[in-house]
Amino acid sequence: MSENKIPYKIYLSETEIPKQWYNLNAVMKIKHDPFLNPATLKPCTADELKEVFCSECVDQELNRKDVYIDIPEEIRDFYKMYRPSPLVRAYCLEKALGTPAKIYYKFEGNNTSGSHKLNSAVAQAYYAKKQGLKSVTTETGAGQWGTALSMACAYFGLDLTVYMVKVSSEQKPHRREVMRTYGAKVVASPSDTTEAGRKILKEFPGTGGSLGCAISEAVEKAVTSDSCRYVLGSVLDHVVLHQSVIGMESKAAMEKYGVSPDMIIGCCGGGSNFGGLIAPFMGEKIQGKNNIDFIGVEPASCPSLTRGRYVYDFCDSAKITPLAKMYTLGCGFMPAANHAGGLRYHGMSPIVSALYNQGYMRAVSVEQTKVFEAAEMFARIEGILPAPESSHAIRVAVDEALKCKETGEEKTILFGLTGTGYFDMSAYKQYNDGTMKDSIPDEASLAQGFSTIPDIPQNK
Amino acid sequence: MSENKIPYKIYLSETEIPKQWYNLNAVMKIKHDPFLNPATLKPCTADELKEVFCSECVDQELNRKDVYIDIPEEIRDFYKMYRPSPLVRAYCLEKALGTPAKIYYKFEGNNTSGSHKLNSAVAQAYYAKKQGLKSVTTETGAGQWGTALSMACAYFGLDLTVYMVKVSSEQKPHRREVMRTYGAKVVASPSDTTEAGRKILKEFPGTGGSLGCAISEAVEKAVTSDSCRYVLGSVLDHVVLHQSVIGMESKAAMEKYGVSPDMIIGCCGGGSNFGGLIAPFMGEKIQGKNNIDFIGVEPASCPSLTRGRYVYDFCDSAKITPLAKMYTLGCGFMPAANHAGGLRYHGMSPIVSALYNQGYMRAVSVEQTKVFEAAEMFARIEGILPAPESSHAIRVAVDEALKCKETGEEKTILFGLTGTGYFDMSAYKQYNDGTMKDSIPDEASLAQGFSTIPDIPQNK
Repeated sequence: MSENKIPYKIYLSETEIPKQWYNLNAVMKIKHDPFLNPATLKPCTADELKEVFCSECVDQELNRKDVYIDIPEEIRDFYKMYRPSPLVRAYCLEKALGTPAKIYYKFEGNNTSGSHKLNSAVAQAYYAKKQGLKSVTTETGAGQWGTALSMACAYFGLDLTVYMVKVSSEQKPHRREVMRTYGAKVVASPSDTTEAGRKILKEFPGTGGSLGCAISEAVEKAVTSDSCRYVLGSVLDHVVLHQSVIGMESKAAMEKYGVSPDMIIGCCGGGSNFGGLIAPFMGEKIQGKNNIDFIGVEPASCPSLTRGRYVYDFCDSAKITPLAKMYTLGCGFMPAANHAGGLRYHGMSPIVSALYNQGYMRAVSVEQTKVFEAAEMFARIEGILPAPESSHAIRVAVDEALKCKETGEEKTILFGLTGTGYFDMSAYKQYNDGTMKDSIPDEASLAQGFSTIPDIPQNK
Repeated sequence: MSENKIPYKIYLSETEIPKQWYNLNAVMKIKHDPFLNPATLKPCTADELKEVFCSECVDQELNRKDVYIDIPEEIRDFYKMYRPSPLVRAYCLEKALGTPAKIYYKFEGNNTSGSHKLNSAVAQAYYAKKQGLKSVTTETGAGQWGTALSMACAYFGLDLTVYMVKVSSEQKPHRREVMRTYGAKVVASPSDTTEAGRKILKEFPGTGGSLGCAISEAVEKAVTSDSCRYVLGSVLDHVVLHQSVIGMESKAAMEKYGVSPDMIIGCCGGGSNFGGLIAPFMGEKIQGKNNIDFIGVEPASCPSLTRGRYVYDFCDSAKITPLAKMYTLGCGFMPAANHAGGLRYHGMSPIVSALYNQGYMRAVSVEQTKVFEAAEMFARIEGILPAPESSHAIRVAVDEALKCKETGEEKTILFGLTGTGYFDMSAYKQYNDGTMKDSIPDEASLAQGFSTIPDIPQNK
């Protein structure tokens, strides 16, 4: 292989770490509908939101004016410890597939937390510290977000309490241990440390907990102290904003080599990684400067974009958060128990939802056995063991590259590889043992989920 | 922090990946004593060794002539998927310690296998493939080596059977699963697939196995087939040779910024990572061109350099391998059951042993609670969760930096960060729970180990 063409890994230099995030909210011609206070059904005010979230994050959440928002020096200094992340030209995968497509992936698993979540965790921890807070709370399910936030809080000297879904805490003791090593207090939820937890425990003794319950506990713990706030790892606009560092770097790295993508593919759970990856490219599409094919990939087990409704819904299953206008399966929807591929969220980032609704992107859903098939192939060929979540994007990138093989098109495909699968080996074991099953919700399951969508005038 | 000084991470470009390995054997003025055939007590011939190992590796093992050995293009292409590895300036750690020392670390955990082991795994798999072999065998204890070799064999299309110490296979099912995901056959050892395994099982039903037994099984499996060979992840000279890519890159990266180390620190188990890290620097020291202070760090629980004997010993506890002249605690030595920090090997690489014996380097031993204390501090400050093995080097680097704080010396310290601790969270849990204990072998334990050293004329 000659030395002077595009390298396997395109590393930008430290000085090329973006100095600004890209705010899709500012560039969208039709803004997404605002969060609603569930009591009044009126748009949430900044002050209301600031009781729960850090002030600067709320200001970013509501900023629909500035396309570029400065990344503070302190956050860039942290970014320097693991960014710029590599943009990899998947030469080995292209060769194995025999495709004329040119495949690139932006790898965000290149830090100890193992995923893109760190990009927003460090920002939120920094703003909390700057505001003079002593501590923050959050919830975590699979543990990627809790891990990333633990790292960020250790760095900035903030106390952190993570409410970890009890069943997950028991099934993933090693995830819990990473958080403890970073100094976080990890509480199995439901717990007796909050009113919400005690109530659930009384009502359902022996329950394994749920993300909805963990959110309730984390929010309660945060709002009952002046020096504490609640932080969230996806869905919200300011999280998408922080994740735009992925797209900004990808764009800079590709431009450095005179390459522009025909297609950008990312997995969609809450939507923050996908929103961040596409941000600056999508901004140009909205401005009529490109015609990139954007594809959000979701699990067939939890198909919020492809089979959900575009309505106002709660962000949590305990129905205590503001209402967001988004594609949702209903806040009471639960993916089938045998779903092992992650991306279990019932709704979708309001920004991503709006882009999809306005026709700027498309969405596809994939079954988990096909996802793990792609994951294993990718691991063996490209040498990186991918997270199940990330592997949704791999699956579709491979499928699109194989289409190019048939048509002879030399499309340039960029996909987001959000993280590593180190802590997902139980799911890989199911796949390796041949015991993994697919589960596509039937109409009755969907109807059951939709019945939990709030019955309010806005949804008529 | 200004932008034009030494960056946090020094990434060489892909074209700067070394084109040659550095062969310490060729530059040493006094060569280390050769391997002996245990039956004849005569030096092993190349032909004898080639029955067990790949031919090209044997030629490298015995090469005491060429200082530089070309890295084949195919191996360099694989290296491009994860190399050059970053050389990190530990600004955050320096600040936290308040030391005038300048600390650098070469991070080898930046690939899916999570450790430096991949550097030799890919080379050995390539040579096996080139020789026309269909398969290779190996053993693994903690799993780093087995994981790395699985990746390499998947890439080159070689069948791999890994004999994994049974107790380790049960305690680390996720490690086993990573290897399976890369297509390796993982056999809990002792097994009924070999004579050696069946014999042990008959003698000790219900045994949890040992590395010695796993080696016996892997070697038996390899030598009973013409198209199969056995590969090993440390100790041997050709493994140290492959690992010299670490030192070559470190040297190139430091020279690029006009920096030269006063001190190089690495952890020592079998010695291949340490030997590889120091190789080109040590070569210059032997030639009188520098006076770097080289420090090998070993666990107080398994102190082969600091408390062992420099004699001929078996490389395995089953006493089936050739005899190597090395620092050893005796091939029957077992670290205390509560030792969780890795680096459990009873002996030491013959090259490293000879360098130590000839006074070119020093060695220190550290207790595991102090090692994990440094590991946790490092994780919180530098953002990388280190492997327990690597943390031995962190401990001593921190101690040396603190000495500089006292004396005001601005020493430049380079240490090797060999891997990540993702699969070592049980050990971190012991530390986090406060249940981790230190164990320093008493004189009786050492005497017991020494009694297993072969009683041959060379050892008189």
